[in-house]
Amino acid sequence: MADLAPILNDIDRDLDNALERLFAFLRIPSISTDPAYAGHCREAAAWLHGHLEALGFETSVEETSLHPVVLAHAPKPGTPHVLFYGHYDVQPVDPLELWETPPFEPHIAEDAGAKRIVGRGASDDKGQVMTFIEACRAFKAMEGELPCGVTILIEGAEENGSQGLPEWVAANREKLGADIVLVCDTSMWNPTTPAITTALRGLAYFEVKVTCADRDLHSGFFGGAARNPIHVLSRIIADLHDADGRVALPGFYEGVRETPPEVLEQWRGLGLTAESFLGPIGLSEPAGEKGRLILEMVQSRPACDVNGIIGGYTGEGTKTVIASTASAKVSFRLVGDQDPAVLAKTFEAFVRERVPADCKVEVITYKGSRAIALPYDMPELALAKAALEAEWGVPPVTVGAGGSIPIVGDFKRLLDRNTLLIGFGLDDDRIHSPNEKYALTSFHKGARSWARILSAFGQARA
Amino acid sequence: MADLAPILNDIDRDLDNALERLFAFLRIPSISTDPAYAGHCREAAAWLHGHLEALGFETSVEETSLHPVVLAHAPKPGTPHVLFYGHYDVQPVDPLELWETPPFEPHIAEDAGAKRIVGRGASDDKGQVMTFIEACRAFKAMEGELPCGVTILIEGAEENGSQGLPEWVAANREKLGADIVLVCDTSMWNPTTPAITTALRGLAYFEVKVTCADRDLHSGFFGGAARNPIHVLSRIIADLHDADGRVALPGFYEGVRETPPEVLEQWRGLGLTAESFLGPIGLSEPAGEKGRLILEMVQSRPACDVNGIIGGYTGEGTKTVIASTASAKVSFRLVGDQDPAVLAKTFEAFVRERVPADCKVEVITYKGSRAIALPYDMPELALAKAALEAEWGVPPVTVGAGGSIPIVGDFKRLLDRNTLLIGFGLDDDRIHSPNEKYALTSFHKGARSWARILSAFGQARA
Repeated sequence: MADLAPILNDIDRDLDNALERLFAFLRIPSISTDPAYAGHCREAAAWLHGHLEALGFETSVEETSLHPVVLAHAPKPGTPHVLFYGHYDVQPVDPLELWETPPFEPHIAEDAGAKRIVGRGASDDKGQVMTFIEACRAFKAMEGELPCGVTILIEGAEENGSQGLPEWVAANREKLGADIVLVCDTSMWNPTTPAITTALRGLAYFEVKVTCADRDLHSGFFGGAARNPIHVLSRIIADLHDADGRVALPGFYEGVRETPPEVLEQWRGLGLTAESFLGPIGLSEPAGEKGRLILEMVQSRPACDVNGIIGGYTGEGTKTVIASTASAKVSFRLVGDQDPAVLAKTFEAFVRERVPADCKVEVITYKGSRAIALPYDMPELALAKAALEAEWGVPPVTVGAGGSIPIVGDFKRLLDRNTLLIGFGLDDDRIHSPNEKYALTSFHKGARSWARILSAFGQARA
Repeated sequence: MADLAPILNDIDRDLDNALERLFAFLRIPSISTDPAYAGHCREAAAWLHGHLEALGFETSVEETSLHPVVLAHAPKPGTPHVLFYGHYDVQPVDPLELWETPPFEPHIAEDAGAKRIVGRGASDDKGQVMTFIEACRAFKAMEGELPCGVTILIEGAEENGSQGLPEWVAANREKLGADIVLVCDTSMWNPTTPAITTALRGLAYFEVKVTCADRDLHSGFFGGAARNPIHVLSRIIADLHDADGRVALPGFYEGVRETPPEVLEQWRGLGLTAESFLGPIGLSEPAGEKGRLILEMVQSRPACDVNGIIGGYTGEGTKTVIASTASAKVSFRLVGDQDPAVLAKTFEAFVRERVPADCKVEVITYKGSRAIALPYDMPELALAKAALEAEWGVPPVTVGAGGSIPIVGDFKRLLDRNTLLIGFGLDDDRIHSPNEKYALTSFHKGARSWARILSAFGQARA
């Protein structure tokens, strides 16, 4: 085995500079879902382009139908080749008033001795992406080359359903040749135990807009006679779940398989309880299907959540209005063989059944993805497990993840390659929320972990 | 009977100037519910002060706990004295993008020969207030004095539940001596038939804020296990009505009296149908209690409407978030002896029963008002009916109104005076909505109507 000490030492020694590099990346407000930030998405791509080129990668920025992707190559004949995927785009920052510091002014905060990197994208996914790039930087700095072949693909629309990426991947297969895909966009089991994610829930996302009268009405004149779209929408949302917390759409659970008893037994052994999972976010009662483990609820069972709702007067004080329209964003987490295309039809029919004949409803379907599950016998899985154990001192947990990374399914379908999901986020990183953070240990030991993994891969066939 | 022709001729001749005066008033964005517009409320009061002083009224601007009131006196010993009430404040203008022209740039628009005054407040209540003031102006111009004693009280917080006004009235009873109160804030029966409103529904207005987790959550990580406040709120709203359109709060219908059969018979004879009432706003199916007339639904029956709702991500595109909080504004129209204070307790209990134990809910109660009904044998009612018939050529309809004007109950309680509600608005005036308008005939013949009414009152005891 090659001596990794100089590489790891370089990562340790250069940590402050690594943080400065990450901060520069975090300062770019590359929000992909809001067209007003399209220029900043392009700016983030340009920053990566310059950075990866400086590290010796053959780098290009390539157009998609939405925001561009950054592609960087460093081939090494005779060794395995990995395709690393991440995203430079970030979630919107509202509600802005709940941020303790401006979301795009990254900094280190310290709490009881634990340092964290604070800012939008610190964890999802800029901080995670930079763990991989910092590992590459250390190899280049100390050895002039990487231990195995590497292609880096960083997209800019992950938070917008990876719009345009599958088409770009399909059209650029020859640029993406690799033995395996690596993704750094998932979490550790806890702050001291790494995790490799081997399953991901799918996603179906809809927007429902109900229109009743053709104008806003005075509730004094019309209240009692005119249909109120907020009532119609609330009825639809209330009907989405039954009294046992199950999703009440007809046929919704078709394709959902029960978790095998031996896996459930293993999960019970992990000791995750309602208190330990929900306590840190101020809750105590699981809201999901009755009689299920918390881990089932968030990993192996489907779920439905309304992600946003708006209608009528929402300013200060009172307004006696019956709104003309009300709308909600509704998403489903999918498992097993649940098909987002089938769900789209079921959902639209479910909604339309509940809209009075003289009202109108529009159902917008955003890009969906099926759930995926990776094979347990991938040789790279064993190598990665050993590398992570060497860094963290404990073996990694292999888990499913509740969130969706649709492109992983696309890599399988379009490139016929499996994906190893190794990330260093923590459950309290507040990703998608105000005051997003990334533990400094995640960033530092994440880079060291990737150095160990790349080294192990490089020796596999060397 | 005095010769009214010179007065009416002067109103006709000076119409263009009257419109310029109204436009100046309408240009002031005196939105009372938004603290940001407090200065403009004061500006509207100052404009009225100057205008009424110029007409020879003894005028003052007096402070209340919110926006000031304008008070103007023109006594005439030996004649009846009327107290005219109106409001200079207007509703918020959102959604601004639905206005075809800026809300505070009033102008005349013409549609198939029918002219209308367009702008926020054109109908509610600045245009209506100015019909009365223009009638006073014509008397002053032609005769140098009014036909009866007049006190004008224009408040600035009607759209904010008349906050501060009852207290001010209670403390200033001696300034408000009058035989009867006149209010111009209601509608005609149709564009050619005037109406006198003899009953008003009461109002109870609440805001409900549900908080689940102590932060926004990623729906991938937490979806299926963490409680979603939009679901909790939607369930509460869905439960507010039963399948027959009745309000489902326990005891809600206590104090609600059935409309007498002979009144129902008269209402049936008016020929108001779902098509004629709802058709103009793009609807066709009554949403209220099954088996009730449309007129019952909007006048003699109570009702509940959610006036606004907001939670989670409401921007463009998608965000996979479970919000920490969601809130809704919920109001009730009251009739008979329904008591807003009792309802506040029932409503809060109803809400709390539906909030999971580990979540929080805040219920804000805004100022409420009971329903009121005026005596049919008021002598001024007969005088006003005759005056309106003389102007419009048909006798006025006496009706109930669905909307609430809480101060009318306060005038009865604090001043022991009845109120005649005579207004010239039309049901399609879009008050509280974008593109509010006031028919030019409402404005012009409204002023002529008040001239006739004041003249009739002046002769009653002359």
